[in-house]
Amino acid sequence: MTISNLPEWLQDVHFDDQGLIPAIAQDAATGNILMVAWMNAESLAETAATGRAVFWSRSRNRLWRKGEESGHVQQVLELRLDCDADVLLLKVEQVGGIACHTGRASCFYRRLDTTSDPESGTSSKWVTVDPILKDPELIYK
Amino acid sequence: MTISNLPEWLQDVHFDDQGLIPAIAQDAATGNILMVAWMNAESLAETAATGRAVFWSRSRNRLWRKGEESGHVQQVLELRLDCDADVLLLKVEQVGGIACHTGRASCFYRRLDTTSDPESGTSSKWVTVDPILKDPELIYK
Repeated sequence: MTISNLPEWLQDVHFDDQGLIPAIAQDAATGNILMVAWMNAESLAETAATGRAVFWSRSRNRLWRKGEESGHVQQVLELRLDCDADVLLLKVEQVGGIACHTGRASCFYRRLDTTSDPESGTSSKWVTVDPILKDPELIYK
Repeated sequence: MTISNLPEWLQDVHFDDQGLIPAIAQDAATGNILMVAWMNAESLAETAATGRAVFWSRSRNRLWRKGEESGHVQQVLELRLDCDADVLLLKVEQVGGIACHTGRASCFYRRLDTTSDPESGTSSKWVTVDPILKDPELIYK
């Protein structure tokens, strides 16, 4: 797909200098943020056409049809664009209830916890607060 | 702030080659996604220390204490990091109920609407579906 034959709604989207835009997947029912991945024009077009989330895998350098290996497909109920047209929001139904490759519902499972101690002062650390729902070895067989 | 004196929790965060990481601000009460902006290590450290969202403005090339002009400060109730450590999630209380510079509650006020017509086929467009709550000229005086 070249720029010249992109439909107008796709031309409205500001892809970065690598042709990518970040896309947030949010659980439409609970409001939980599930993950953030990247899309190029082709993956966004396929997402809109099929109603299934398709991303661009930067590590594998190819289209990534979310759930293609895990079965954890995201059905896209709504697509939104922000004021600068450089971030997408997908409201999705997460098949299987697991979005993260670690087997958790959401990729945002680490919380910054801060403790204050009169002697040592303030210290913070990332703490894993969400459970693994399914062993990744059973997801990616 | 140089890498060598960053606390461990900040070293756990994967900043990109420009020293930045995207940060999603989510309304802690409603779950609505308000905006996405960028942070560098300094803005993230200040956010964690003060409990007030501080971003890095790429256009102005300086720290951006959210609400510094508009008064629409974000009180950060929780900070989360995703599995790849390259996206942050801030659960916030949005002072004034307006996050977007357009005067809307959220920056994600455009929805992709698709219509199908037997003759012309399928067409999509971004439709503004959220109201302006306050005239931006009154916000940025």
